[in-house]
Amino acid sequence: MDASAASRTVSPRATAEKLKDPDQLIDSVETFIFDCDGVIWKGDKLIDGVPETLDMLRAKGKRLVFVTNNSTKSRKQYGKKFETLGLNVSEEEIFASSFAAAAYLKSIDFPKDKKVYVVGEDGILKELELAGIQYLGGPEDGDKKIELKPGFMMEHDENVGAVVVGFDRYFNYFKIQYATLCIRENPGCLFIATNRDAVTHLTDAQEWAGGGSMVGAVRGSSQREPLVVGKPSTFMMDYLANKFNISKSQICMVGDRLDTDILFGQNGGCKTLLVLSGVTTLPMLENPDNTIQPDFYTNKISDFLSLKAAAV
Amino acid sequence: MDASAASRTVSPRATAEKLKDPDQLIDSVETFIFDCDGVIWKGDKLIDGVPETLDMLRAKGKRLVFVTNNSTKSRKQYGKKFETLGLNVSEEEIFASSFAAAAYLKSIDFPKDKKVYVVGEDGILKELELAGIQYLGGPEDGDKKIELKPGFMMEHDENVGAVVVGFDRYFNYFKIQYATLCIRENPGCLFIATNRDAVTHLTDAQEWAGGGSMVGAVRGSSQREPLVVGKPSTFMMDYLANKFNISKSQICMVGDRLDTDILFGQNGGCKTLLVLSGVTTLPMLENPDNTIQPDFYTNKISDFLSLKAAAV
Repeated sequence: MDASAASRTVSPRATAEKLKDPDQLIDSVETFIFDCDGVIWKGDKLIDGVPETLDMLRAKGKRLVFVTNNSTKSRKQYGKKFETLGLNVSEEEIFASSFAAAAYLKSIDFPKDKKVYVVGEDGILKELELAGIQYLGGPEDGDKKIELKPGFMMEHDENVGAVVVGFDRYFNYFKIQYATLCIRENPGCLFIATNRDAVTHLTDAQEWAGGGSMVGAVRGSSQREPLVVGKPSTFMMDYLANKFNISKSQICMVGDRLDTDILFGQNGGCKTLLVLSGVTTLPMLENPDNTIQPDFYTNKISDFLSLKAAAV
Repeated sequence: MDASAASRTVSPRATAEKLKDPDQLIDSVETFIFDCDGVIWKGDKLIDGVPETLDMLRAKGKRLVFVTNNSTKSRKQYGKKFETLGLNVSEEEIFASSFAAAAYLKSIDFPKDKKVYVVGEDGILKELELAGIQYLGGPEDGDKKIELKPGFMMEHDENVGAVVVGFDRYFNYFKIQYATLCIRENPGCLFIATNRDAVTHLTDAQEWAGGGSMVGAVRGSSQREPLVVGKPSTFMMDYLANKFNISKSQICMVGDRLDTDILFGQNGGCKTLLVLSGVTTLPMLENPDNTIQPDFYTNKISDFLSLKAAAV
């Protein structure tokens, strides 16, 4: 059931090629999917040359889609982040893992009388609400403590039919126990992870423990594998291809992480471009232990412009 | 390095035999190792017939040892629990995973100038203190929050040479991030788990998420496998055999869990007795999917007395 479990079966590509002729790549696809953090921005700072690059791609008639494993914001909240950074991106072009969790539940016709227990921040709640799905948990459980009198028992809602786990700065033992009880004791209860990223970029000063830690905790106590809806699972790619009616071979996935972005593109059968403006460095890409090779790599997406200029 | 990783290589035994002749088992060994929760007590209640059974074994000259994966108490604090329940057990007979973590660090000559970062409760701190090992973290980090200003960076102590993770009711994101930073950024930093139990018995009213959840969280963000010092890893068994100078074939491990206690005994080459007074039921033992078969099983340890009486 875990789409990411299949991810390691992708056959290794030949060595990645340094991008030299961006026009050839641009002309060969109709859609670009961009990861956000490390590609468009780093923490709160826009990466050089991004607005001009996106404008050029739009002028060429390319569809642009922005995909992020960050589940703390909803599509609408992300839209505001793009706006603040001076980028003209609509909500419909944004696919965050918070949205993916809600979209997944809608895709399986999650019953109207069932609820979702949320370990995570506001973005997941907002997306569930928009999808008309009942939920409990989330930020309001952030201050709850376990009272340990002899015989004490935590009650849980037997109508919880899914637990969604995403990144959560206010993670605590109450949430671990509540999520575990639902998964272990409610028959058929799903365990959905927005992502399993080891690290995330809360601030641009250092790497921070990511959603993989919250998911790892619930996995450790429930002894169940999660169903992952974010990258590198193929759920969002299938959803996008279906929604926009595009062939996956006509998509180029652009990202800064090998084990999420590039694998996501490869699992979906897309072209892939690694940018070195985020967490992956050239020595990491070229390390003989690295088995994930994108089709192309380049320093940053604005190389689409500078390489073109150089080629003229 | 993870001793528990080897645990699955144990060859399956034939089907467990229902205990009929306790004297034969008692006479065949010189030491009994008892798990505590589900064998001696359940939560705060002594299991029927335990004091008389232990007295009988002592009268027969058997060495008794009590081993628990619970790391929230030190040996000394456990001694008090035995005393409160009216059992005459000395500190030296008690081996908790809190003690095992400190004993492991001593066994590898953990450098005097290095420190341990603790995710866990008081028991681990107390044992580290007794072992003369410097530490930080533990309960005092239970109320710490992450301040999220742009550019914010969490400082961490570069002298942390090991992170010890045990069960922790006051688990939070601060601890996950601190532990992850030490493991990822301090060269050679060890990641030690007291145990990976999915559930524990904080109260006897229900099962509670166990140390496996805290360990799973740090594993998820550090992408490192822990070195487990509690059951079913063989560290404590080797330590005990060495300390008391006993042959492992002269030990009978008595416990209520197949995947920790019985595996622990089997990994150590001991005889094993499963009691059904804890988490494992007869249908669970007899389930065809269960690959862990003890040598013997019985309802509770006082069957040592009632079966003898019945045999007379």
